[in-house]
Amino acid sequence: MTSYCCRRYVSRLFQTFGKPQPKPKSERKEHELGLSCKSHKLMLYNDIIAPSHSGGFHLLPLGLRALEKLTRLVDQEMEAIGGQKVALTTLAPEALWHQSGRWVSAGAELFTLKDRHKHQYCLGPTHEELVTKLMANMTHISYKHLPIRLYQITRKFRDEMAPKYGLLRGREFEMKDMYTFDTCEKTALETYNTVCGAYERIFDRIGVEYVKVSGATGIIGGDLSHEFHYLTDVGQDSLLTCHRCGVEMNKELAEEDGSLPGVCQLPGSECQLLERRGIEVGHTFYLGTKYSSVFNACYRAQDGSSMVEYEMGCYGLGMTRILQASLESLSTDASLRWPRLLAPYQLCIIPKKDRTHGEEYLRLAESLSDQLTSHPHLRSEVIIDDRMSLTIGRRQVDADRLGCPYTLVLAGKALESSPQYEVIDNYTGETSFLSWEQLSDFVDKIVTV
Amino acid sequence: MTSYCCRRYVSRLFQTFGKPQPKPKSERKEHELGLSCKSHKLMLYNDIIAPSHSGGFHLLPLGLRALEKLTRLVDQEMEAIGGQKVALTTLAPEALWHQSGRWVSAGAELFTLKDRHKHQYCLGPTHEELVTKLMANMTHISYKHLPIRLYQITRKFRDEMAPKYGLLRGREFEMKDMYTFDTCEKTALETYNTVCGAYERIFDRIGVEYVKVSGATGIIGGDLSHEFHYLTDVGQDSLLTCHRCGVEMNKELAEEDGSLPGVCQLPGSECQLLERRGIEVGHTFYLGTKYSSVFNACYRAQDGSSMVEYEMGCYGLGMTRILQASLESLSTDASLRWPRLLAPYQLCIIPKKDRTHGEEYLRLAESLSDQLTSHPHLRSEVIIDDRMSLTIGRRQVDADRLGCPYTLVLAGKALESSPQYEVIDNYTGETSFLSWEQLSDFVDKIVTV
Repeated sequence: MTSYCCRRYVSRLFQTFGKPQPKPKSERKEHELGLSCKSHKLMLYNDIIAPSHSGGFHLLPLGLRALEKLTRLVDQEMEAIGGQKVALTTLAPEALWHQSGRWVSAGAELFTLKDRHKHQYCLGPTHEELVTKLMANMTHISYKHLPIRLYQITRKFRDEMAPKYGLLRGREFEMKDMYTFDTCEKTALETYNTVCGAYERIFDRIGVEYVKVSGATGIIGGDLSHEFHYLTDVGQDSLLTCHRCGVEMNKELAEEDGSLPGVCQLPGSECQLLERRGIEVGHTFYLGTKYSSVFNACYRAQDGSSMVEYEMGCYGLGMTRILQASLESLSTDASLRWPRLLAPYQLCIIPKKDRTHGEEYLRLAESLSDQLTSHPHLRSEVIIDDRMSLTIGRRQVDADRLGCPYTLVLAGKALESSPQYEVIDNYTGETSFLSWEQLSDFVDKIVTV
Repeated sequence: MTSYCCRRYVSRLFQTFGKPQPKPKSERKEHELGLSCKSHKLMLYNDIIAPSHSGGFHLLPLGLRALEKLTRLVDQEMEAIGGQKVALTTLAPEALWHQSGRWVSAGAELFTLKDRHKHQYCLGPTHEELVTKLMANMTHISYKHLPIRLYQITRKFRDEMAPKYGLLRGREFEMKDMYTFDTCEKTALETYNTVCGAYERIFDRIGVEYVKVSGATGIIGGDLSHEFHYLTDVGQDSLLTCHRCGVEMNKELAEEDGSLPGVCQLPGSECQLLERRGIEVGHTFYLGTKYSSVFNACYRAQDGSSMVEYEMGCYGLGMTRILQASLESLSTDASLRWPRLLAPYQLCIIPKKDRTHGEEYLRLAESLSDQLTSHPHLRSEVIIDDRMSLTIGRRQVDADRLGCPYTLVLAGKALESSPQYEVIDNYTGETSFLSWEQLSDFVDKIVTV
């Protein structure tokens, strides 16, 4: 395997190109700019995203690094449940969406276009039609090959009436969508539970508090649905939970059903309903044969001749939304906080500014970077703040803006014969002085993906 | 680092779901189906891609694995030259494309659409406008921060009049596009040469024979351009090369210039021009200030006050085209051949079908798979053909269809006290019998990305 360990330098980051700290703006001005939530501002000010068009944002290098980490995490958990990764086309022919009825029901939220031959397409917001049609064409698949669990992580499009909150309600976004195909309701529900389990592992590993509630099926349709939410005031959804009787549902569903609680489901106790705002970051649907019947997507049954419709499920994760909702949940107005696992860089090395020994500190930083990145899990996780004209304190501010979980400061003691390295946990403020062996043990415990 | 080593089984692959081998079709029938080249047929028949719409193809699990390997390779080489990865939006506002003049010049090849507010966009085929506008907005960048080299690997769109040859001339494709920003012509040309060098390393590592020729600048524009071609009869371009005087150019350029050779550029010798068909897989452009002047994209000069236009370059690699053009170049009508580095799986283990010892062979296969995938470079490279009702020969045919470079056959000698493992190089046909130590050495030498 060719080794491609490059040293990484803060001086090369967009973020530190001397942009002045943003001046506080009036609420009215912020509203005009659409800067209506903390995470949106932090992402813009720290060059994680940049605006392109209304509801469309470029991911800059820091943002893309976080997205690629989340992608690896999701790939691991999808592969662990037998998920096979595909990439379906972005354009979906009008005819398929008419067949499912969604060309009409999705309405103005669909981006549509005509090609030069006047054929019409939509830009897929989700891909039930395309994937079911794909499976319908694979007529040689038999019961022996099931379950089949296909997923993709690709860009999706939705023509939001009023895009808002940056990546939280944008018109272009990265989504992970999985589609599953089973023989019968029983195995389809097993698959449903398996995927829900994988989702719980994903959210547990990200580490931001989430709630899972019964959800409304909306235009996707189907019989059973759960939503995964991060709790935040900028969320669109109202969630009802009661720790006494275990009610956990989207208020929208409760209203649809007419089952709005108030009387507890547990006999003899009274509901202590809490209503909280949540932002949906994942959604699972058991679809049954809703789509397979439309597209005649069938597998060959055990008897060898009859063709039986697939029992399907579909499962979404809002990848870019998870990133921003995590920041919204963990950050303060002043300090950017990533879920540690997804931070663009784990460790920032700051060599001391020093007229006599500055060069020596910088060389030491580079040598430590080389040694630390030889730990496979830190291969691309270390960045050196090589702006040697700035004080440690000034650069520590930038490490914090970068949302770097750890800083390694190289000052006087680092050049002594028994060197001591100062390590700061930027998320807790804790500082330790470590020997080389202790430093080595310390970085071994940093969890990466 | 959490270890996520899953065993991989051939029985789970789409490709082996018992699809009958395709019957030979008449040339006319193939023409009707648009099956006009070998690689297109191989990719469809072996479930690497599946058709979605005219000029649009889904990447199935095998195809996506190859694309993700190519992506890693390109990421490594881009990072090695200081490339920073971004993801620009797919939708590009009409106004920017009018500003550059390309809304008109790109003409019918642009996919365009209107949103619900009647604002018009195109689906970016390349992103000079968006990236130059992005840089124009970053007014705090100074000469000290240059060069800046941004790249992305994303889906692009072009409304081809007559899509053809699968991924070779499709309407949706994955492209790597890099955009570079320098202080002056001199440094911009250094960047140009650096990126060309990285392209040569990429193509060298892929290992398919390529030629680099002087190219036409077309609608991208600019002053200097090179094209990287794979040589194949289905290529669109005519390349002129003479080994005597070193002429290497696209015939189109020669005709534009009126410099169609015929008289050698080397005094006293005669041109031995060869005309060959090539398919363009990479293209580099030195742009100068063509776009930065339009969008007023400037950096702060050394004097601290004046703003100077960026000298730009842009650089494309057709990612999905490289995949298919490689197959076109390396395969035969019957046998799929990947560049070894990009093969979806490196090693297929086939445990012998055996009424008495079958189970034992399969367990051995799983145990070997676990041991081999503990080599980090083989982590996801080993697949077990667990279809124990099929003979070794039958499964070897599928390993070959899969384009797997190596097969490890577990038969009688593998269960002996000093076991011998049969390893077949599927691309050369060479067979070796190896001890465990020899096998371990052998797999250590497999190069992966």
